[in-house]
Amino acid sequence: MEIATGGPLVAALNKKDAIKLDIHYLDRIKIKKGKKIETVVVDIAESEKAVPEGSIGVYEEVLKSLKLKNKDKIGITLARKPLSISFIRKKLDGGTLTKPEIDQIVWDIVHNKLSDSELTFFVAACYTNLMSIDETILLTKAMAKCGNTLNLGKYPIIDKHCIGGLPGNRTTMVLVPIVAAYGLTIPKTSSRSITSPAGTADAMEVLAKVSFPINQMKRIIKKTNGCIVWGGSLNLAPADDKIINVEKTLEIDAESQLLASIMAKKQSVSSTHILIDIPVGNGGKVKNRKEALKLKRSFENIGKKLRKHVKVMITDGKQPIGNGIGPALEARDVLWILRRDRRKPLDLERKCISMCSEIFKMVGIRNSRTKVLNILNSGKAYKKMKEIIKAQEGKVFDERDIAIGKFKLDVSTFRNGTVTKIDNRTISRLARVAGAPTDKGAGIYLHKHINDKVKNGEKIFSVYSESRQKLHFVREAMAKSQRAFDIK
Amino acid sequence: MEIATGGPLVAALNKKDAIKLDIHYLDRIKIKKGKKIETVVVDIAESEKAVPEGSIGVYEEVLKSLKLKNKDKIGITLARKPLSISFIRKKLDGGTLTKPEIDQIVWDIVHNKLSDSELTFFVAACYTNLMSIDETILLTKAMAKCGNTLNLGKYPIIDKHCIGGLPGNRTTMVLVPIVAAYGLTIPKTSSRSITSPAGTADAMEVLAKVSFPINQMKRIIKKTNGCIVWGGSLNLAPADDKIINVEKTLEIDAESQLLASIMAKKQSVSSTHILIDIPVGNGGKVKNRKEALKLKRSFENIGKKLRKHVKVMITDGKQPIGNGIGPALEARDVLWILRRDRRKPLDLERKCISMCSEIFKMVGIRNSRTKVLNILNSGKAYKKMKEIIKAQEGKVFDERDIAIGKFKLDVSTFRNGTVTKIDNRTISRLARVAGAPTDKGAGIYLHKHINDKVKNGEKIFSVYSESRQKLHFVREAMAKSQRAFDIK
Repeated sequence: MEIATGGPLVAALNKKDAIKLDIHYLDRIKIKKGKKIETVVVDIAESEKAVPEGSIGVYEEVLKSLKLKNKDKIGITLARKPLSISFIRKKLDGGTLTKPEIDQIVWDIVHNKLSDSELTFFVAACYTNLMSIDETILLTKAMAKCGNTLNLGKYPIIDKHCIGGLPGNRTTMVLVPIVAAYGLTIPKTSSRSITSPAGTADAMEVLAKVSFPINQMKRIIKKTNGCIVWGGSLNLAPADDKIINVEKTLEIDAESQLLASIMAKKQSVSSTHILIDIPVGNGGKVKNRKEALKLKRSFENIGKKLRKHVKVMITDGKQPIGNGIGPALEARDVLWILRRDRRKPLDLERKCISMCSEIFKMVGIRNSRTKVLNILNSGKAYKKMKEIIKAQEGKVFDERDIAIGKFKLDVSTFRNGTVTKIDNRTISRLARVAGAPTDKGAGIYLHKHINDKVKNGEKIFSVYSESRQKLHFVREAMAKSQRAFDIK
Repeated sequence: MEIATGGPLVAALNKKDAIKLDIHYLDRIKIKKGKKIETVVVDIAESEKAVPEGSIGVYEEVLKSLKLKNKDKIGITLARKPLSISFIRKKLDGGTLTKPEIDQIVWDIVHNKLSDSELTFFVAACYTNLMSIDETILLTKAMAKCGNTLNLGKYPIIDKHCIGGLPGNRTTMVLVPIVAAYGLTIPKTSSRSITSPAGTADAMEVLAKVSFPINQMKRIIKKTNGCIVWGGSLNLAPADDKIINVEKTLEIDAESQLLASIMAKKQSVSSTHILIDIPVGNGGKVKNRKEALKLKRSFENIGKKLRKHVKVMITDGKQPIGNGIGPALEARDVLWILRRDRRKPLDLERKCISMCSEIFKMVGIRNSRTKVLNILNSGKAYKKMKEIIKAQEGKVFDERDIAIGKFKLDVSTFRNGTVTKIDNRTISRLARVAGAPTDKGAGIYLHKHINDKVKNGEKIFSVYSESRQKLHFVREAMAKSQRAFDIK
């Protein structure tokens, strides 16, 4: 049928066949083609036209798994429900899951054996009946195991992660070249934006390719000590993506799930030293310092049990970090920092230097701050970034080659005063309406940050877009949104 | 596309269109055709062939809702998530739902506004964070309101319900004619089998039609005081069926859900006096007396708050009730009882008499047992049953006109002794393998019950089937199953 279900393996039977075979909606059947067998969930087609009697309609995922072609002859038999159903029920009933149980659930998730509903029961069970730290660790290991892994045979392996939600904040693209320039290994995988104006992968894509199979990622790291690639193409801990998809429907975030999700990806690239950044406040994932401290303890706890060095920084999430928001504008900020351009955003630079110093300290490097500054100021970091861009088949090494949206809207203030608040959500929203992250050149450039003085008529931010119409939508959105800047 | 999703309204976009419009898997869009608008969940089609660029594929349910035809021009816009998402999340977080919140959730369920995953979150939330009795009542009322209702303008309105799982146990078909013959109103709706060899609707269908729209049901009751129809065709409390579908995936049964489910259907036919039968033990839904007592109290409690007279009987569920198991065999048992045939199953007759006496007592009839026996023995109950069969467009009034499967397998014992156990699950399973409930004449006939003496070589049960091959499958299943009879 060439329609994807986005996960579960589903096949549709004609209603008459289903009655004849006593097969019901959401039953499971085994489909056999030659020697290959796949178990799928049953959907019922009401009409002859969709699925004629005596034939079966299969969704994209089944097509691929069994390599089916039109008119292929297949056999079907009733199948049992997957083993993990009873384990999911156990968790829902408040039980504690064992290693084989968690392994089985994760295996079934990765192999699309669970229906949307069954997977949702698992996510709901872990959300309402919190997982213990031991269960979380088992989940982390199971998720890492059921996917690709990267073994570089080096020590230490550096990694970093930022708990999302803060616009700008493009630290990875500054940090990776500094760490790699010092000679440390940092196989960094990043995500694309889901609801924000840009993920690190989106911004890096302005300069170079970011989708690579895992062995090519390995080659890039061997050449340059580091990389900045999109995690989505690597099939690391694939169960995690499926779980996150379900969580998104209700916008829930089970702590155990968050921990396992992040740590599984680190586990699968064999990281040994991990720096975690938790920005706090104003529309981000972590609302306040208390929550951040709790999360910090959990990360440190799970790190210890996984025998990894984990350091958590709680940072200021009150306003965007950097001036550019949107893939191209963020990439330009990064190159300005690395090329020591006077237009570099100082807040982003400051944050990157302090994060890098922490990483250096974690692996026992003395005078870490001085060393970080040396690498930056000597141009070594920029040189390393060029190497990485080249290794990732990119051609943009200079911010002047970055195309910024050619339609621009300057927003000015009509009073004298001081910036007291910048609303992260509104800024994100406007950047998205302008076209980010799909239109790489779209986004927002902040001329002012919190505590900056402004004068009547002074520009506070500019919106860039690749289409006049989208800029028009931005104007409309501004009229309806929460105010982006508060000036008092 | 003429494929049903079995509930949620889903439409598929071509992948390229989805990227262009920045619409993601599981987002919601509004589809507009003429003046009709429907909000649907988005699926992504990977290929041109399934859904060409610039067009949209809609599933059966959307097709019907918007009355769409091929090549119709439609408009789409991004839509918000349904209101109930945040209420479901509130319940998942342990909150207590209010009337407007529960009303909205039920409305969204009935109108297919929730994805499988979202509905599952609701079911999981009510399962792990138990609903209070007040929430259960709100749910009951909301479910009854969002569907058809039957108003007969009479008092009292009798109803009964049996918590399923026990093979045989065809009390409704004996009870309804007795109650109706006395002049009381009993608008009984029943279910078809889901996992058992026969539901009441399946057995009644051997004698008469069971699918009627609600106004025709009303006419039948006006004529005969009672009916035995299939609830599925009446659209009573339709949210309930969708919730049960989700519960089935994990075989869970939230008590609040069970209560609301049963009481909503009673509420929608305006029953005033309800007798509930809870059989206990041996593979049934309720495992032990303690559980049954708890459930009894909950039923009485919710009955009081709904201002209904609810009486709960806890009965013996150790073995099948009646001799026949399977639609035709059960219908035959019923007619034997009503026609006072010497082959009537005494255990089923005894149970029906005691249930009927309870119902008579509930509405204040004295000497209830004597009256029930009179109605049975005088032939009034049988006469009433014939009226009901005729009103339901049936033609089978005599058990000799019931077709029993022509292939038969007698199972005998090879020892002398006493029957100590009959395994309900094995009996159900064998009856299903023989073809029940789809093949009406298939099933099992028990020659012995618990405590009966048996002699070496004596028949203990017979299996009937409409096909030689299925009988062969029964033989295979018997070799693999738990033993059906224990004899010591």
